[in-house]
Amino acid sequence: MGYHRRVERKYTLVDVRPNPQATDLAGLAGRLLSELRARRPLVQNITNYVSMDIAANALLAIGAAPAMVHAPEETPQFTPIAGALVVNIGTLSAATAKAMQIAVDVAHKVGTPWLLDPVAVGPMDFRNGVVLDLMKARPAILRGNASEIIAVARLAGLTQTKATPRGTDSTNTTSEAQLFCIELARHFGCTVVATGEVDVATDGQQVVRLANGSPLMTKVTALGCSLSSVMGGFLAIAPTPLEAAIAALAVYGVAGDMAAETARHPGSFRVAFIDTLDAITPADITGRLKVIA
Amino acid sequence: MGYHRRVERKYTLVDVRPNPQATDLAGLAGRLLSELRARRPLVQNITNYVSMDIAANALLAIGAAPAMVHAPEETPQFTPIAGALVVNIGTLSAATAKAMQIAVDVAHKVGTPWLLDPVAVGPMDFRNGVVLDLMKARPAILRGNASEIIAVARLAGLTQTKATPRGTDSTNTTSEAQLFCIELARHFGCTVVATGEVDVATDGQQVVRLANGSPLMTKVTALGCSLSSVMGGFLAIAPTPLEAAIAALAVYGVAGDMAAETARHPGSFRVAFIDTLDAITPADITGRLKVIA
Amino acid sequence: MGYHRRVERKYTLVDVRPNPQATDLAGLAGRLLSELRARRPLVQNITNYVSMDIAANALLAIGAAPAMVHAPEETPQFTPIAGALVVNIGTLSAATAKAMQIAVDVAHKVGTPWLLDPVAVGPMDFRNGVVLDLMKARPAILRGNASEIIAVARLAGLTQTKATPRGTDSTNTTSEAQLFCIELARHFGCTVVATGEVDVATDGQQVVRLANGSPLMTKVTALGCSLSSVMGGFLAIAPTPLEAAIAALAVYGVAGDMAAETARHPGSFRVAFIDTLDAITPADITGRLKVIA
Repeated sequence: MGYHRRVERKYTLVDVRPNPQATDLAGLAGRLLSELRARRPLVQNITNYVSMDIAANALLAIGAAPAMVHAPEETPQFTPIAGALVVNIGTLSAATAKAMQIAVDVAHKVGTPWLLDPVAVGPMDFRNGVVLDLMKARPAILRGNASEIIAVARLAGLTQTKATPRGTDSTNTTSEAQLFCIELARHFGCTVVATGEVDVATDGQQVVRLANGSPLMTKVTALGCSLSSVMGGFLAIAPTPLEAAIAALAVYGVAGDMAAETARHPGSFRVAFIDTLDAITPADITGRLKVIA
Repeated sequence: MGYHRRVERKYTLVDVRPNPQATDLAGLAGRLLSELRARRPLVQNITNYVSMDIAANALLAIGAAPAMVHAPEETPQFTPIAGALVVNIGTLSAATAKAMQIAVDVAHKVGTPWLLDPVAVGPMDFRNGVVLDLMKARPAILRGNASEIIAVARLAGLTQTKATPRGTDSTNTTSEAQLFCIELARHFGCTVVATGEVDVATDGQQVVRLANGSPLMTKVTALGCSLSSVMGGFLAIAPTPLEAAIAALAVYGVAGDMAAETARHPGSFRVAFIDTLDAITPADITGRLKVIA
Repeated sequence: MGYHRRVERKYTLVDVRPNPQATDLAGLAGRLLSELRARRPLVQNITNYVSMDIAANALLAIGAAPAMVHAPEETPQFTPIAGALVVNIGTLSAATAKAMQIAVDVAHKVGTPWLLDPVAVGPMDFRNGVVLDLMKARPAILRGNASEIIAVARLAGLTQTKATPRGTDSTNTTSEAQLFCIELARHFGCTVVATGEVDVATDGQQVVRLANGSPLMTKVTALGCSLSSVMGGFLAIAPTPLEAAIAALAVYGVAGDMAAETARHPGSFRVAFIDTLDAITPADITGRLKVIA
C-alpha cells in the first residue's frame, strides 16, 4: 500500500512546474531578507519550552521582533496586531493545545498568516488530534521533518504509509516525503515544507529543493523550531507563503554552511549560527545557495 | 493632553534633587557588587519561559543564587526565605498571574522586597489588569522599558498619553518616560527604572541617568528580563531600592560596553556578556560609568 | 542526633565493597559512552523550564535523542517507547507533579527505567510530598546534591538530620551525604548519586567516588539537571543503574575538567562544555578520571 500509487492516481509530477533557477531563488531570498530587516515584523510564537530561547534569539538576530504571547486571554487582542503567528506543538499539553486553537482561529478570522510546526506528530493520539484540529484553521505554511510530514499526510487520509519517527528525529528522508508535501499542499491549500539533508518546499504546483546546511544543525536542540519561527518572520512580509518558505530555508541553510566553517562542535556552532543570522548578507546567499533541479 | 501639564501641576522638577556625581555612583555600585558577591543572596524569580535560562545564568555569574519557584503551593514557604522576589509577566497566563499574586502578597506581608517587570504591558487588557493588581502589593522597584513605564502610568491614571510598544520593543525613549517614572515613584512609593539608550532610575526625589550599554543588548532575547533578576539580587542586599537599581544598571551597562569590545554579533555577545558579569570588578565600573547630569 | 549512630546501628561500612580501580571504571565509562553513541537512546525528560535547553543540548551532544514529552495525555503512549525517563522537579507545580506521577507509574509498569532529580527538596512541604510519592514508583536512580540527598533520607524516615540547602545550592558535602546515599539505596532498592566536589554513587553495596569537575560547573545554571538527563541516556543502555551513574559522572567530570582548560568564565565555559560532550573520547576518560579510594 505504497504512497506512489495513490499519488500517481490523483496527479503526476508533470503537474508540477519545473524547479526555478538558483540565481532567481537566491535573489528572491536576498531581497526578502533585506525587506524583513527593514520592516522588522512582529512574530507571535506559541512554541515549546525547549525552543523559546533559541527561537526568540534567531528572530532577533535575523531582524524580526519576537513575541511569546500564548494566553487565551491575550491572543484575541495580540494575534490581530502580529505580522504572523507560529504554532509549534513540541511540549504540548491540554492547556497549550486550547491556547493554540484559540489563537489560530483568531488568525484565520483576521487574516494573520500562520505556520504550523507539528513536532513529533505521529505516535501519540492526543497530538495527532490537535494537529488535525489546527489544520482546519488553514495554516499558510506547514513545516516539519520528513517523518512528521508523512504522519500528517496519513492523519489527513492521504496515505496509509506510516512514518517512523524516533522522538523528534526523522527516520525518513525528504525524498520520501516530497510527494506527500505536494498532496498536503493541494489538500489543505497551503505551502508545505519538509526539512532535512535536502529541504523541500511546495505550494502544490511548484517544488523547490535546496541542499545547504550542516549536520551540526541536528545537534543543536530546537534549531528546526527556530527555523519555523524565522519562516514566520518571512511569512509576515513575503508576497506568498512559498516565497517566505524559500527565503527562510535559503537563509538558514547558507547560515548553517557559514557557521560550520568556524565551529566544529554544537556548543560553539550554536553561537556561530546566531552570529551568522545577524551577519549574513544577500551576497552570501547568492554565492552559496545550492538548488537541486 | 500631554503629560507635561499634568506633571507640572502636581510638582515641578525643582523638587528633584540634582544628579549625584559619577564617582559617587560608581563607588556605590562597586561596593554593592562586592557585597552581593560576599553575601550571595537567594533571589526568587517568577519569570517568563524565554528568560529563565539567561536570568538564572546572569544571577549565577554576578554571584547571586537564583531560584525559579513559582507554584502557589510553594511560595508561602519559599518567599519568606528569599532575599528578594522578581516578578516578570512576559509569558503571562491565568495560572501564572495567580501564582504571582500569591507570591507578592506573601512578600508584602513578610517584608521580602520585590521587583515588578511589566513586560509588554499596554496593548492587552488582561495583562494590564494583572499589572494593576500586582502594583497594589507594593513593589520596591518597577522596571520596564520606556513604553512599558508610560503604559503603567496611564493604567494608574497618571496620564492620558498612550505608549506605542511593538511587542516587547519600546518605541518611546526614556527621556519621554522620565517624568512618568517620577510620578509613578511618588504615586506608588517605589523606585522606578526605565531602561533604554539612557537608563533612568528614580525614587521620586532623586533621579539618576546612566548612559552605558551597547545596541547589541537589544539583540539578545530577555537580556532586559535578566537585568530585572540581577536588580533583584542587589535589592536583597542594598540599603535602599534606588541604590539597588543604580548598582544593577551600572554593572549591566558597563558589562555591556566591555562585552561589545570583544563580540560583534548577538550569539557571541551573549556569551561574552555572561563572562563579563563574572569577571567585572568595581574598578571597571569606576573607569567606565557614564552618568548624565 | 547525628546520622552516624543510626547508620552504624543498621549496617557498617564493612558491608560495602571496596571501591573499584580507576582503570576499571574509566574503561567501563568509555565502553558505555561508545555504546550510547552507537545506540542513540531516546530519553524522555519531564524537567524544569530552566533546564530544558541545556538538558536537550547535552543529550544531543553526547549522542542521545532527547524528548521533552510531559502531558498526561501523551505519557501513556510515549514512556513505553522511551529508553529511559528523567523526572526533575525544579519548577514544580500541581500540574507537573500530576504529569510526573502518571509518567513514572507507566514507567514502573512497562519497565522503562527512570531517574529522579529531587531539585530543592527539603524546605517546602508540597515538594517533599511529591518526592515521597514519586519514590514509591521505584526510580532506578536518585540523583541530587548533598543537601537534597540528606533531605530525602529525612523524608524517608532514615535520619533526623536536617539538610540546610539554600535554594538549589547544597550547603552540605557529599562526604556528609555518603552514608545517606547507602541507606537510601538499600531502603528503596535503587542507585543513589550525590554530586559535588566529590561525586558519590552507590547501589547500597558498592560505593564509587569520583573527583573530577570544575567549580565553573556550579556557575552554569541547570548543569546538574543536564547531568541527570545524560545519566538517563546511560540508564537506557547500561547493564545496571550503578554503571549508568558511573559512566555519566565520569563523562561529566572529565568534560568539566577539559572545558575548564579552555574557558575561564561561565558563558564561554557552557559553550566549551557542550563542545566537549560532543568531542570527548574514551581515551580522554582513561587519561583523566580521578577515582578516590
